[in-house]
Amino acid sequence: MESALKEKLYGQMKLAKEASRQLARFKQEAKDAALCEAGRQLLQNQTAILAANEQDLIKAQQDGQPAAYLERLRLTPERLQDLVDSLHQLAKQTDPVGEIMERWTRPNGLVIEQIRVPLGVVGIVYEARPNVTVDAAAIALKTGNAIVLRGSRSALSSNLALTECIRKALVQSGLPEEAVQYLPYPDHEAVDLLCTANGLIDVIIPRGGASLIQRVLQKSTVAVLETGVGNCHVYIDKTADYDMAEAIILNAKSSRPAVCNAAETLLVHRSWPQDLQNRLLAKLLSAGIELRACEKTRLLHPALANRLAAASSADWDTEYLSLTLAVATVDSLDDAIGHIESHGTGHSEAIVASDNDRAELFLSRVDAAAVYHNASTRFTDGGEFGFGAEIGISTQKLHARGPMGLTALTTSKYVVRGSGQIR
Amino acid sequence: MESALKEKLYGQMKLAKEASRQLARFKQEAKDAALCEAGRQLLQNQTAILAANEQDLIKAQQDGQPAAYLERLRLTPERLQDLVDSLHQLAKQTDPVGEIMERWTRPNGLVIEQIRVPLGVVGIVYEARPNVTVDAAAIALKTGNAIVLRGSRSALSSNLALTECIRKALVQSGLPEEAVQYLPYPDHEAVDLLCTANGLIDVIIPRGGASLIQRVLQKSTVAVLETGVGNCHVYIDKTADYDMAEAIILNAKSSRPAVCNAAETLLVHRSWPQDLQNRLLAKLLSAGIELRACEKTRLLHPALANRLAAASSADWDTEYLSLTLAVATVDSLDDAIGHIESHGTGHSEAIVASDNDRAELFLSRVDAAAVYHNASTRFTDGGEFGFGAEIGISTQKLHARGPMGLTALTTSKYVVRGSGQIR
Repeated sequence: MESALKEKLYGQMKLAKEASRQLARFKQEAKDAALCEAGRQLLQNQTAILAANEQDLIKAQQDGQPAAYLERLRLTPERLQDLVDSLHQLAKQTDPVGEIMERWTRPNGLVIEQIRVPLGVVGIVYEARPNVTVDAAAIALKTGNAIVLRGSRSALSSNLALTECIRKALVQSGLPEEAVQYLPYPDHEAVDLLCTANGLIDVIIPRGGASLIQRVLQKSTVAVLETGVGNCHVYIDKTADYDMAEAIILNAKSSRPAVCNAAETLLVHRSWPQDLQNRLLAKLLSAGIELRACEKTRLLHPALANRLAAASSADWDTEYLSLTLAVATVDSLDDAIGHIESHGTGHSEAIVASDNDRAELFLSRVDAAAVYHNASTRFTDGGEFGFGAEIGISTQKLHARGPMGLTALTTSKYVVRGSGQIR
Repeated sequence: MESALKEKLYGQMKLAKEASRQLARFKQEAKDAALCEAGRQLLQNQTAILAANEQDLIKAQQDGQPAAYLERLRLTPERLQDLVDSLHQLAKQTDPVGEIMERWTRPNGLVIEQIRVPLGVVGIVYEARPNVTVDAAAIALKTGNAIVLRGSRSALSSNLALTECIRKALVQSGLPEEAVQYLPYPDHEAVDLLCTANGLIDVIIPRGGASLIQRVLQKSTVAVLETGVGNCHVYIDKTADYDMAEAIILNAKSSRPAVCNAAETLLVHRSWPQDLQNRLLAKLLSAGIELRACEKTRLLHPALANRLAAASSADWDTEYLSLTLAVATVDSLDDAIGHIESHGTGHSEAIVASDNDRAELFLSRVDAAAVYHNASTRFTDGGEFGFGAEIGISTQKLHARGPMGLTALTTSKYVVRGSGQIR
């Protein structure tokens, strides 16, 4: 059973590998034309795509999936149009492949160039959102990579319909259609096989919740581009301006609570004026945010005590992704940094402070992909940073850290030209 | 048993993690002073180090280790002096930490800087050479990283003596001595625990043979910097100049056969003049190189047939690391590229050709860390590329590819300064 599955998967991955070698040689114009053609195919096949999606939705409903799940799974004419728009946006961006990153001549006459090349074959494991199928395939194609897609079983019909459109676009544009492979196997073994296909898959990107990411990290012998988990903190220093503090924590917590750059814990310096602390907590509560506070905080604000739930130790490590916020009172800047060292996930961490020296200490000592002084953690985002397409937000330290643009899907090679040099 | 070991290891790794946070804040001058002090300590404690090494050598001899093994294990006053010299060399190099890689201002006024920071804690697993203890610790310190060392059991006394010197130097220089940890546990479990200590170890570097590297890759959930295995090819095109071809393959194969950038397979275009082919093969044989040839090659050179061993299919995938060379005749440039695609390890690949168009095709299509036109594969080396210290040669595609300088032990972080911006 497993070996039959393995044979099928390896067959698809080998086709992808072979196609990646061809794809690496196409120029930007050809790849961009294919992206635009993929947009045309999506619109042309809209009826079929929506019908396939309807099948998935009916099945998910029968399986008793909650409304939020169905919402993620749902495609609409508007959502398809958004996908088409993003394909056109991507086609307009500069192709990083082929860039000469460095070039120098050695005393022996060797000319060394470091040039940017595609990674090869990207594997992606994702959950119910069918739009990831198009986004991920498009970014891979733009950067000259083949892609092997493995979405969730619940979106199978939708994903197959979308993949079909992209492959048609490749054929129409003279690019190798085998560069986009969809693995239609629901078993976990399919993911495990993908994650251990060293030599065929160059990088695995898990897109989804923490448990999906952990599973891929545990299983994978292929390099993983880790994205996503953000237990982000906003620290209000004793020197913080009130209005700035209020605006930043409200924005960081509630502008879009379900994303990874949203704040999950508020740290307040004990010596920040009591009345400001009280006003801020009351404001957060009145904004509909559930607060889970440490014992110190509850003691400092007896008037609010019945509205401040007692935080358990698990709260400091929880990524709520909802309108819940943990609150801790800290005795010093050092304590704030120590709390973040113990509980942060290295995503985005902010200090609100009027004292620049204290802010600089925070910025230099906190080890995270992005650290902020007097700004919301919500800015950790490819678009907000001014990058074009975003592949995700890396919370790992190797290869790419923070918002990842197109270059995260490339590597380099050294091209050395000589005239008979030996060593 | 295992949990007692785990407790000890995690204790050491936590000390390293804590020390890494302090170390990240030291300036280049302090780190360079510590490197020079480590050199002084090595010389001052030479007698104790050599005595410890003598113990290791006696034990290895009793265990029946071969002469080459003992040679790698052996320390001498000259070898210690070499280590001291390399510490001084390293101290002279520019510290990459703190470099502002990019800086820009967004329309909303946010100022974003991407700055270079240490990775944190580097784990290194290595074999009998005790000099790696000093080299690896020094490179880690230079880049502001703490290091957890796990050398082979056979070099334990030597490694502990060397580690002691480095830790003394840290104390003398006011740096945290816990930044250098040696794990004195011979069991494989110690390596497994190191490789799965996510959150405490930021990257694992295996230094040694293919089986060590594979073992670490299989076991590790921590990111791995993969170095080393090189099944490198030299392809002699039909347009190759004879003298250049001879010089390059002789150099690539025999100047230092045991290293990863040495050539293991010679590919010869069928249409390269027969007399040149014959002369080249005879020359290689007379240089003491054992040739293992494909059937085609043996048929083309009947006069040499009794000196050309028949290659088995395993030969194309063997990294001999000795004076043995596989030889295959190919019918075309495409076939040569196809052979390298099937059997290469993505390390270093060379073409010898007078025709530039053919050479450029090879350079662009072959997917390896370094590709060469009319030069020896032996140049894939940090020193030869003009880098300073070399951490190893990466054959992976993520993070670093090819010879790795100091920057391979760093990552970046985004520092964002605002004035109350929200999204």
